[in-house]
Amino acid sequence: MHFNLSEVQEKEIMPGYHGKMIHSDHITIAYWKADKGAKVPEHSHLNEQIMQVLEGSFEFTVNGVTGIYGPNEVVVIPPYAKHSGKALTTCKLMDVFSPAREEYK
Amino acid sequence: MHFNLSEVQEKEIMPGYHGKMIHSDHITIAYWKADKGAKVPEHSHLNEQIMQVLEGSFEFTVNGVTGIYGPNEVVVIPPYAKHSGKALTTCKLMDVFSPAREEYK
Repeated sequence: MHFNLSEVQEKEIMPGYHGKMIHSDHITIAYWKADKGAKVPEHSHLNEQIMQVLEGSFEFTVNGVTGIYGPNEVVVIPPYAKHSGKALTTCKLMDVFSPAREEYK
Repeated sequence: MHFNLSEVQEKEIMPGYHGKMIHSDHITIAYWKADKGAKVPEHSHLNEQIMQVLEGSFEFTVNGVTGIYGPNEVVVIPPYAKHSGKALTTCKLMDVFSPAREEYK
């Protein structure tokens, strides 16, 4: 199974968050472009998540601890951990989830 | 849990494949720099894998089907599928595995 990300359709999953999703049986990868100022409201899910900032500056709160992350920074979000975020600049982000994120299919 | 990839130590897991690994409970992400010409011998593993080419040109064979992949291209490798590869140029690659790749810890 092979994808070219330039041909994967973008979905605006939340206001200001434009994502391209790759799903396999056990993994979802979401490649996001986030508009400056766009917020992810606090939420949680059973899926383990690893978030990487590819470009820009992203404020991210996990279990009440807030950090500001830039390129090369990676945050692990355990299953059911409450987390929220805000794009301080336009951002490119990548999220990896396991199990696959059914709501994004 | 937070990592800066610039501070993660690189390991030469196979000749010519220099990887930085991020492990969570259920996911491993491997960020590779591959030397031009370096080969991954055919192998398989229980972990599902998603491979993305970040830079360069990578020849990749999965279950006997060979393709040449470049930036933005993503290949899904099912559990136990036989696969092998060759960096046709110096490459940057990313692999995502679930379950986590115990041999890379």
